[in-house]
Amino acid sequence: MSARVLIVDDVPANVRLLQALLEAEYFEVFTAMNGSEALDAVQRVKPDIMLLDVMMPDMSGFEVCRRIKSNPHTRYLPIIMITALDQPEDRIKGFQAGADDYLVKPIDEAALLTRLRALVRFKFLLDELESSIGDELLLDTRLESEEERPARLALLLNREGRDQRLIDWLRGRHNVRLFEDPVMLLDQVRHGTVDMVMLELPLKGHDALRICSQIRSLENGRQLPVILLMEDGHQKELLHALEICASDYLLKPVSLEELEARIRIQLRRWRYIQRLRENVRQSVTYAMVDPLTGLYNRRYMNTHGRAMVEEAGQRGKALSVLVMDLDYFKKVNDTWGHDAGDEVLREVAARLKKQLRRLDVICRIGGEEFAVLLPGADVRMAQQVAERLRRAVAGQPVKITTDDGELDLHITISIGLASFEKKEDTLESLLKRADEALYTAKQQGRNRVVRQKAA
Amino acid sequence: MSARVLIVDDVPANVRLLQALLEAEYFEVFTAMNGSEALDAVQRVKPDIMLLDVMMPDMSGFEVCRRIKSNPHTRYLPIIMITALDQPEDRIKGFQAGADDYLVKPIDEAALLTRLRALVRFKFLLDELESSIGDELLLDTRLESEEERPARLALLLNREGRDQRLIDWLRGRHNVRLFEDPVMLLDQVRHGTVDMVMLELPLKGHDALRICSQIRSLENGRQLPVILLMEDGHQKELLHALEICASDYLLKPVSLEELEARIRIQLRRWRYIQRLRENVRQSVTYAMVDPLTGLYNRRYMNTHGRAMVEEAGQRGKALSVLVMDLDYFKKVNDTWGHDAGDEVLREVAARLKKQLRRLDVICRIGGEEFAVLLPGADVRMAQQVAERLRRAVAGQPVKITTDDGELDLHITISIGLASFEKKEDTLESLLKRADEALYTAKQQGRNRVVRQKAA
Repeated sequence: MSARVLIVDDVPANVRLLQALLEAEYFEVFTAMNGSEALDAVQRVKPDIMLLDVMMPDMSGFEVCRRIKSNPHTRYLPIIMITALDQPEDRIKGFQAGADDYLVKPIDEAALLTRLRALVRFKFLLDELESSIGDELLLDTRLESEEERPARLALLLNREGRDQRLIDWLRGRHNVRLFEDPVMLLDQVRHGTVDMVMLELPLKGHDALRICSQIRSLENGRQLPVILLMEDGHQKELLHALEICASDYLLKPVSLEELEARIRIQLRRWRYIQRLRENVRQSVTYAMVDPLTGLYNRRYMNTHGRAMVEEAGQRGKALSVLVMDLDYFKKVNDTWGHDAGDEVLREVAARLKKQLRRLDVICRIGGEEFAVLLPGADVRMAQQVAERLRRAVAGQPVKITTDDGELDLHITISIGLASFEKKEDTLESLLKRADEALYTAKQQGRNRVVRQKAA
Repeated sequence: MSARVLIVDDVPANVRLLQALLEAEYFEVFTAMNGSEALDAVQRVKPDIMLLDVMMPDMSGFEVCRRIKSNPHTRYLPIIMITALDQPEDRIKGFQAGADDYLVKPIDEAALLTRLRALVRFKFLLDELESSIGDELLLDTRLESEEERPARLALLLNREGRDQRLIDWLRGRHNVRLFEDPVMLLDQVRHGTVDMVMLELPLKGHDALRICSQIRSLENGRQLPVILLMEDGHQKELLHALEICASDYLLKPVSLEELEARIRIQLRRWRYIQRLRENVRQSVTYAMVDPLTGLYNRRYMNTHGRAMVEEAGQRGKALSVLVMDLDYFKKVNDTWGHDAGDEVLREVAARLKKQLRRLDVICRIGGEEFAVLLPGADVRMAQQVAERLRRAVAGQPVKITTDDGELDLHITISIGLASFEKKEDTLESLLKRADEALYTAKQQGRNRVVRQKAA
């Protein structure tokens, strides 16, 4: 993995040291010597991650970090603060400014590279999701995802020496669930009902790292924030944990201020990813579905239907197509208004859908026009289905609501049918024949099924 | 990183060995003892990657691999073949069966872990993209992406000892471009005009790994196939290369059969990822846009518009909303038909759009109804814009095509205007006031702009 790293430090020797380390690992390195250069470079070189010194002449690293994190366009750029300031207050200040990590000099190289790689992986995932959603919806999605609300925290702690103060504090802010059994915790993660996990390390009677990596091997657990609570002095285990699974860690006794800042950072990321996914999925669904009837739309028909016809052709399987149209629908709209017309369309759509199998595809392809693809159905079978659809509509009146109360309308449909007959048949040729058949059905008096053979 | 690994081998001792290695690295391990168990386990445990032995009693690993790779549902499950068969023919057979990698026993543990991690990362990316696109379009996308066609190959080779046979062979199948200067190659990658890169290692006068990692630090280069051509005996450099950037490698002298199989595997992956991205992006765009006029749709108005109004409220900035409707549009449809009506809508939409700034948002929110959001526009400015829009429509006739030739229609619009006035204003309250104003404009004789103040 390679990435674009921006190093910000006012001491040239420090810059050179980090630069040499990162270039040896084949990262692309950019540098800035003070805060305003840094803000400028963020716009210009678009780094994937930033290593930021705190004490600089023009502007403190805290201020640089705050500015980047308060700008919705750059908010999710990962920032690791690297500083000689080793007091707890400084760490907390760093996290409150929005830093993703805070490392004290002299730098442990392995620790830096581990954290850097993890944050870059996260950044790449965001890039992928953000490029799916496009610029238009990106800022909206960011704003939507940043509401602060209680999260569902799952805790797995040692029974002995429990920090009740910590638990009470969390309970005052979040929905906390204490687990004894890792299997039950994993089950919750699997079902997507957890927003964050806190694990104590070491965990008596269990391998905490195993649990952590099991969380990661679940689809819902891959990006889930997992925070370790541990004692100082387990540097090697910690590194391993951060490498394979942990999102973050806190040393015991836990500072509640630091905990608050770290939880906020983790939750913000998690919620943003969730929100991006949700918006992309919604868009994809929305792009295939007719909002009025809930049936698939013409676009879906054209892409998916084409694949279905090709497959039938290649495998020599039967397939039929129906195109249907409500009879005298304009009269409904003109007499009873568009709302009544919409009611009729929804009811007819529901009746048609109910008559079909799961693998059949029904689409609304125009105002009052529907199409159905029947994979595996030969002419005879398709004729039966079409007849059943016709009766499902004509068989009982459709109720609409008017200003004078409910009203029964007698609605019928005409159906054109075409079956896959020859190797050259395509979705287009089938739809064309079915359309011609539909025209004949209309000519012959409507409320009927007509089939059109290939020429 | 953790993942679900399926180990398939008929010798229990081999299974145990691999299992111990992978579990020590905190992977989740599942096992199968023969081919049919393996095929079954793929469905059941849904592994992220498979380690597959070749010689098994019931079914060879080649056959298992072929079956998995020929099923569109499991085609992109990464498979590493692990076998005692060390002949070139066997390797080639493995790649021709679709294996993603082929390792010979005794296994180099570091090599296995490196390859496994790289393939798992790829699998996770696919999972992310596939879950965006949803089941409905997934198979279509797979089928669409698998067309075999020439790729754009970029080659960076040493001048001395060039394998002309290799170059000629590639030229017969793909669009090959030989580069001397890495900067030019990187430029092509940046612009997304390359489908695959081949680099010689070592590369005289250059650090090939640096070039490779520079490719990876470009957004268009992150998943691009990069194949290394190298001599045997550089195992350590190779591992490093595979860790940081290379997708695959071939030993010189290159076997053309092996090259063909490996190129096919790399290209298939690359094209599938590209196709997934494209389909997701298309869907997202489609979900926001009205297909008839190309303007944004009501859904976009509701999500993006809400964010715009909120922002204006928070920053105390001006914002105005226009709602407009074509006058007597039903008469156009009834007299000249729906196609003519559509022509009118498209032309009016184009004229309106032309009058607006880039940051204004115009949407078609109903049949003949449009809405415009004007960020930064106070009442006075919005009134000027509205007047300009009204004139752009009424000022010159709209041409439609009828059976009797072209025809000029005189079209007008009525416009309702509302501006952000009080802190409690929302998109809904603004649209409501603008709607009321539009109603008044219709009452007062149409072809005019009316403003509605807050109550």
